[in-house]
This record gives sequence, structure tokens and C-alpha cells, in this order.
Amino acid sequence: MYKYTVTPKFGDIDGLGHVNNTIIPGWFEQARNRIYGYFNPELQFKNWNLILARFEVDFVSQMFYHADVEIHTYVSRIGRSSFEVYQEAWQNGILCTKGKTVLVHFDFKEQKSQAIPQAIRQMLEMHLTSDQTVSVN
Amino acid sequence: MYKYTVTPKFGDIDGLGHVNNTIIPGWFEQARNRIYGYFNPELQFKNWNLILARFEVDFVSQMFYHADVEIHTYVSRIGRSSFEVYQEAWQNGILCTKGKTVLVHFDFKEQKSQAIPQAIRQMLEMHLTSDQTVSVN
Amino acid sequence: MYKYTVTPKFGDIDGLGHVNNTIIPGWFEQARNRIYGYFNPELQFKNWNLILARFEVDFVSQMFYHADVEIHTYVSRIGRSSFEVYQEAWQNGILCTKGKTVLVHFDFKEQKSQAIPQAIRQMLEMHLTSDQTVSVN
Amino acid sequence: MYKYTVTPKFGDIDGLGHVNNTIIPGWFEQARNRIYGYFNPELQFKNWNLILARFEVDFVSQMFYHADVEIHTYVSRIGRSSFEVYQEAWQNGILCTKGKTVLVHFDFKEQKSQAIPQAIRQMLEMHLTSDQTVSVN
Repeated sequence: MYKYTVTPKFGDIDGLGHVNNTIIPGWFEQARNRIYGYFNPELQFKNWNLILARFEVDFVSQMFYHADVEIHTYVSRIGRSSFEVYQEAWQNGILCTKGKTVLVHFDFKEQKSQAIPQAIRQMLEMHLTSDQTVSVN
Repeated sequence: MYKYTVTPKFGDIDGLGHVNNTIIPGWFEQARNRIYGYFNPELQFKNWNLILARFEVDFVSQMFYHADVEIHTYVSRIGRSSFEVYQEAWQNGILCTKGKTVLVHFDFKEQKSQAIPQAIRQMLEMHLTSDQTVSVN
Repeated sequence: MYKYTVTPKFGDIDGLGHVNNTIIPGWFEQARNRIYGYFNPELQFKNWNLILARFEVDFVSQMFYHADVEIHTYVSRIGRSSFEVYQEAWQNGILCTKGKTVLVHFDFKEQKSQAIPQAIRQMLEMHLTSDQTVSVN
Repeated sequence: MYKYTVTPKFGDIDGLGHVNNTIIPGWFEQARNRIYGYFNPELQFKNWNLILARFEVDFVSQMFYHADVEIHTYVSRIGRSSFEVYQEAWQNGILCTKGKTVLVHFDFKEQKSQAIPQAIRQMLEMHLTSDQTVSVN
């Protein structure tokens, strides 16, 4: 698991006074930059090799404007070509939002999924969830 | 089911040349305006009575800049106080993205869920999915 | 001048209950799709030939969630290689926001500006502002 | 002047491979959080006392996905009730974008502008531009 801090901005807050739900996928995406870097160390688009297949987000508690949000990022499953990232957003010590994202290692030229290389797999395994680390799942 | 058309804008496209995944929850939210109007005909925030509890989105096929996207909105489940909206995004006759969103009828003053009134329930039921209408679920 | 209608979505509203200022450049961008089509009829990125050099936006009156917004798009200046788009956002018959955007016809391979072709110039001229049409400038 | 670092996220990049222009007002807004805190130390909306009247942004050089962006924030003018913030976005040592935003100290109950209190004025003055500090204006 690794932590990444995001700062809510004024416009992230909606008419109900809390962070709008549509903001969260972007925050989780931002916190996945490190994982994207495992697959594309230069973060260049021309050799990009990941596809986002699915995400789901649960809104547990409201988040507000006045405090930073800490994103906790885990890898919750590693398959042959796909893997799942589990993320939590914490504010003021409260778990506010959690989500899962499925990504696929993809060969855009061949237009098909490809096995995750062993070296990348080992980097992903560093962040694997365990009963000890995941507070909610 | 009802249809709502969105037009991709230049900035919705990401470095891979297709609509970025984080854009979709906003499009689905926009297409739910009609449902929000069942609960709040004036769309005023001071009496707002809905909470978004969860969404999930599956990315089936890419969407691009050059053509409008048609959002199909169904109600896929109606409970006592919560209901689920099922939505599809179609472009050029292809189902590209589908998602489910769970909303809860909520009393913000009492801070608890409340039963969906019968009159609203009937409006939601007009859009209930059936084996005939939902292409994918 | 041509008109384009946008529908505010729930998350476009900020904690002050009105459309957040950062939303407007995206609405104006969306309304410029027609102009982008003059330069790139297929709206394909690989031959894209426009650069956005500058924009400015004045916030005159608040916009809210409950009503559509009509964007009026004019061409306010045409130079050799650059041109300026002037846009207004109206809601409920009130001019709420106005802005100017400078775009440059650009050759990405040569990395330099290029003259606007005559055929495109004529299309732009159809939308030129005049004292009669521009209510505020 | 103070510095604030933002990290581009995947979806901030558009089909041309660089940060989309509509992203910048949000980054500048985020970097103004400190100034907003001078006026509203708790960053609570119910007593909010600022209105954004205008912004302008110049795009000097492209920004990309792979490196952090440093926002430099200055106060470039302080009037009776309004003030102007001047901001620059730097990436890899290159000035990429600069902008000005006009904000007004506003009494929402009375619906009129109000003088900037002396204590806040002094905090704003700490960030005043000078010939020495502003590289471009």
C-alpha cells in the first residue's frame, strides 16, 4: 500500500457542500500514477499498454473542502493480464470512499491483452492487500 | 427508459485518443437530471433529498470525439428508500459503456433514509428495466 | 452567430450554489465544436491544426442548476493565421458570462503558424460580430 | 509569491498529448486555496465572502503528463474591495501558462462588495509582485 495526498479545490464541492461523487474517479486515477509508471516508466502515451476495464466506487462518508484527503492504494488481485487496484479515500481520519478499478495489460497494436511481465508483477505484489492491511473491503 | 444525448468536447478525450474514463460518471449524472427532477421538481439544493451511495461503470468499447453519445437511462431496482439506475452510453450504434448507480432518498435534517413516496415510485416505475428493453445487464 | 445549448449537471454547481467558474471554459470549448469542424471536418486528432493561445472570461451574473444555458458563439476577429472567438452564456434571458478565445491555425509538423485558408475564412466570416449582433463586448 | 505543486493526471491530457487548456483554471483555483484561507480561515461555505469576477489565461508552452507542475502565485493588485492574483505554471523549468484572476470581497447577505479588511490586506501584500519577482507579466 502507498499513500498519496490530494487537496480538494473549491470547484470539487457541489451544491450539497461536499465533494461531488464524479470527482473521485479522477482522484483515484491520480493516485494510480505510480502504478502506471511501473508499466510505462516515462509515462509516454505512444507506448501506452494499459486499458481501464471497470471501476466501482462506494461512498461511505462525506468529504469536505477544508482538509486534505489521503488516498491509500493497494493491489487487490493480479491475474495473467489484468489486475485490480483497491483504493480508499480518508479525510480527518475517517474512511470516506473506497473503490476498485480493473486494468488490463494491453497491446494496442495487436489489439489484445497480454501477460503482465514478471518484473512488473513483482512491483504490483509489493502493494498486495492482506487481511492485516485492508480495513474495509 | 429515456434517452439523453451528450456531445463529447475536445478536452473529454485523453492521450489515448478516446473519451477518458473519468468523464463518464458526469455524463451519467447529467442524464439523471430527469430522475432528480422527480424528487426535486425545482432542482433546488436547499430541499435536496437524495444521496448517491455507489456507482459502478464497465467500459466495453471506446468512445471518440467526432460523434454524439446517446445515454439510455433505466431504473433497475426500486427498494423502500433506495433505488438503482442502470445506464448505457451508445455511440455510432455501439454499446460503449454501462453503469449502475445506487441512490437513497434521504432526509438531511434527520440524517436518515426515508421511504420513497408512492407518487415518485410510480414515476420511477415508468423506466423499469425488463428483459425486453435491457440489452446488456 | 450560432447558438448551442448546454445543460448544467449536478456537479457543475459549487458550494455557493451556482455554476463554478472553472466549468465555463469547457462549455465554451464544447460550443466551439462547430468551428473546430471547419478546420477538421472529421474531428480527428492526427491531422489537428489548431492551437489555443489564450482565453479570458468575465463573470457577469450567476448561473444555476435548474435551467439550460444557451451559448452564443461569434467570431470577433480574423487575422492571417489566428482568430478570436467571442462567446456569451445566457440563462433565463440573462447574460451571465462572456469570454474571448484566441486560436491559431498551426502546422504541428513544421511547428509554426500557417495562414487560414480562404475557404475556412469564409466560414468564419459567417459568424463575424457586428454592432448589431453583439450585445456586450 | 508562494509555490504549489500539482501532479497532472492521466485524464488531464487531451488528444493532442498535452494538458488540456480547460484544466488550468482548476489548477490555479487549487493554488489559491491559501489566499481563500486568508478570507475564510475555516474554508466554510456558509460565511463565504469572495466572488470571482474574471480570469484570463495565456498558454505559452505545452505541459505534459510525465512531470509535476509548479504553480507560482502572486498578488498583482490590491484595490479597495477587489484584488488580482497573478499565477504561473512551470514544468521542467519552463514557464508554460500564466493567468490573472480578479476576486472581489463580497457580502452575500447585503449583495454588495465590501472593503478588504486591513489584516487581510497585509497578508495579501506579502505576495505582491515586484519587478524583481515576476518573470513575465
